[in-house]
Amino acid sequence: MRTTPSPGYSITLRLEIVNQVGMVGKIATTIGNKGGDIIALDIVRVNKGVIIRDFSVNARDEIHEKEIVNAVKNIGGVRVIHVIDRTFSLHHGGKIEIHNKVPVKNRSDLARVYTPGVARVCMAIYHDRDKAYRYTIKRNSVLIATDGSAVLGLGDIGAEAAMPVMEGKAMIFKEFANIDAFPICLSTKDTDEIIKTIKYISPAFGGINLEDISSPRCFEIEDRLKQELDTPVFHDDQHGTAVVILAALINSVKILGKELKRLKVVISGAGAAGTACCKILKEVGIKHIVVCDRAGIIYSGRKKNMNPVKQWLSQNTNPEMIKGNLSDSMTGADIFIGVSAPNILTVNDIKKMASDPIVFTLANPEPEIPPEDAYPYVRILATGRSDYPNQINNMLCFPGLFRGLLDSRAKTINEEIKLSAARAIASIVDEKDLSEDYIVPSIFDRKVVITVAASVSDAAYRTGVARRER
Amino acid sequence: MRTTPSPGYSITLRLEIVNQVGMVGKIATTIGNKGGDIIALDIVRVNKGVIIRDFSVNARDEIHEKEIVNAVKNIGGVRVIHVIDRTFSLHHGGKIEIHNKVPVKNRSDLARVYTPGVARVCMAIYHDRDKAYRYTIKRNSVLIATDGSAVLGLGDIGAEAAMPVMEGKAMIFKEFANIDAFPICLSTKDTDEIIKTIKYISPAFGGINLEDISSPRCFEIEDRLKQELDTPVFHDDQHGTAVVILAALINSVKILGKELKRLKVVISGAGAAGTACCKILKEVGIKHIVVCDRAGIIYSGRKKNMNPVKQWLSQNTNPEMIKGNLSDSMTGADIFIGVSAPNILTVNDIKKMASDPIVFTLANPEPEIPPEDAYPYVRILATGRSDYPNQINNMLCFPGLFRGLLDSRAKTINEEIKLSAARAIASIVDEKDLSEDYIVPSIFDRKVVITVAASVSDAAYRTGVARRER
Repeated sequence: MRTTPSPGYSITLRLEIVNQVGMVGKIATTIGNKGGDIIALDIVRVNKGVIIRDFSVNARDEIHEKEIVNAVKNIGGVRVIHVIDRTFSLHHGGKIEIHNKVPVKNRSDLARVYTPGVARVCMAIYHDRDKAYRYTIKRNSVLIATDGSAVLGLGDIGAEAAMPVMEGKAMIFKEFANIDAFPICLSTKDTDEIIKTIKYISPAFGGINLEDISSPRCFEIEDRLKQELDTPVFHDDQHGTAVVILAALINSVKILGKELKRLKVVISGAGAAGTACCKILKEVGIKHIVVCDRAGIIYSGRKKNMNPVKQWLSQNTNPEMIKGNLSDSMTGADIFIGVSAPNILTVNDIKKMASDPIVFTLANPEPEIPPEDAYPYVRILATGRSDYPNQINNMLCFPGLFRGLLDSRAKTINEEIKLSAARAIASIVDEKDLSEDYIVPSIFDRKVVITVAASVSDAAYRTGVARRER
Repeated sequence: MRTTPSPGYSITLRLEIVNQVGMVGKIATTIGNKGGDIIALDIVRVNKGVIIRDFSVNARDEIHEKEIVNAVKNIGGVRVIHVIDRTFSLHHGGKIEIHNKVPVKNRSDLARVYTPGVARVCMAIYHDRDKAYRYTIKRNSVLIATDGSAVLGLGDIGAEAAMPVMEGKAMIFKEFANIDAFPICLSTKDTDEIIKTIKYISPAFGGINLEDISSPRCFEIEDRLKQELDTPVFHDDQHGTAVVILAALINSVKILGKELKRLKVVISGAGAAGTACCKILKEVGIKHIVVCDRAGIIYSGRKKNMNPVKQWLSQNTNPEMIKGNLSDSMTGADIFIGVSAPNILTVNDIKKMASDPIVFTLANPEPEIPPEDAYPYVRILATGRSDYPNQINNMLCFPGLFRGLLDSRAKTINEEIKLSAARAIASIVDEKDLSEDYIVPSIFDRKVVITVAASVSDAAYRTGVARRER
């Protein structure tokens, strides 16, 4: 499916090349013929009769990397000295570190940041716990917590293996919203233990971002933490996705001139993202929602493949009680939202939809239908990928959302806060620029975080959950 | 007790001063007469007929700060615009932050540090968990965990109020040993819950530093975590203190020509530090150790004020089964080690000691006996304070110790590792420089961390607990 070389699969080949005219061309052609994308070419040094050069090449995947290396090995006059995987090499020793905000170079510094001076600061917080926001990292810190049970599309890979993703997430928090996020990967998958652990470690944090915890445990964990803590708790896989989908939908209906509340929606996937998406769409007044899982359409009274959350879905969606499989649900639908599995939607399914079909095919990296297949039959298409237009990416939400929560010292995240985040994201695309291929802003548009943060902070004050005096 | 102005109690007074000759002198004299130590004097701006100046002044304590401010307020022609507490002001927003080691400026960066590239790194760790040391922060990260139950001399102040100390500790880890330490303050004081929580959050860390957990819970927490984890666990209040005391003792006996093993030792305090100190001294072969607590000498069969650890002490110290109070224990002692409470030792107690008495009076900030009282009667005196010679400071141990543990990927901390740390600290003071006033190196001597780390790492390899191939 992934046909474009990606910087995620990037290698540097260090080559010893006999010093003859035309060698670079020969190597470049070989790499190009194999589908590799040469992104840099450097001379390392010149030895007697040979030149050492670094070719940096983007490939499609690991197999493709090996094909490229093997092809280069077979060129006469070329010796492969070594191959560095650029992704692995930048992960060496981890991607984040601690930085001291003030120096500790002498006794005088030490007497202020540590004993004896620090004791007074401690006692000030002891007498007024809210001062933790003033004198500790709490005002700018977010806990990223996972049990490693549903990491990316990789599944249950455990705490240690989840760390590179969580460190990456912390980097995004820092780079985009200047938030100090710290990743904690838990070595338990027990719901009660996860809840207790996060609760116990929460005092130093101004916000809690739950990440990649598998469904349906993620629902109970989030719900109970929200009840028990006065710190905002956000399960990104649920609500981050839901907020960005809603933003994309708000802009889609502007283009089509349809009315949001009257849309007929099919959601494929009843996991974290699908359920949260259903809830936020109900929140904006959409009535006609049908959710499908592996066992087909969820309806009131279904017995197969149920859990408490699907039970809720069965009671709160599908008012016409239709039954059948995903394909059956598509008749007359205005929008298909896929947060499920690769290649489960067909062109025939799309042909059953209402006029001007909207298809959000968000399974990653392989969507519910290959975009190339869908394009001729849809009006608006969005994916979770960066190599197609309209990328539905949680990064549009969580950095700005938490910035706004921290700025207002919100004690919880309510529906109005999430809706305001969605409206803020949608608002960044100017109405005159809106088009079928431009329904959400770029994640690199610096306006996103600023706009979302301001909107979230406003909503926190408006709904009475902000604690910072202004 | 604290008679010297300290940078821990430092204020900046912003003053509007009428523009007359001699005003600065008048203000400086007033501050000096009150015992304040002027450390900086700056002009902020000049207005019509007045000059705005900042006087930065070290005081003895908060009351002293107020006395100084009041005295300045009473000077004619001076208006106090505001007073900034320099310790509080540098704590604003906390003292540490997260720093990204590689940039995330564009899609290409993002594809490597996050999806899709990161997935391969995750899977590499999933297939070989030891690769977490290569590709995540684990190789350089330490968890600082506390429940806030025994913070400095402040007692049980809770999780939020403990944060400034833990952030300060993280700063020391970074500045002195380039270790990325993250503070977690727990909102539970239940032993089992603390053990489980630390266990669950441990996967991302290469070492665990327990901090300021009250005795006797600290013993069980450390013991059980050591059993259950293959990550080194170190309760600094116990073993950090014990290691530095042993280092100071090794150098003291060199000066006195006494033999370590034959020393008669009195330890005042049967908490974390006292117990660990007793254990490490037994480890080096010292037989004559008597431990005292609030209830007096601990002996086999004592019923009053006992707990499991004191039970152990009663069976493993005091071979002559002497009874009585602290004063009774002092007869013939070579060394008094105080890790207990202010002003519980008298000059008469010291007079009962053997020739060339060694007194380590480490209660902080107020020692077991005022150093000025003790000096005429002792040969070697050490305190926990920076304003007397021979400061017994855990900073001599923990940064280098953890550096060595991380460098060797030690899976545990054994007795030999602690002993080697003590010997390394002692070795830094050159034998020709050794004197009664110089038994331990300065915490700012950069050789300390390097020497301790190398020694600890060697010990880890020697005792078979190092996991890094070399």
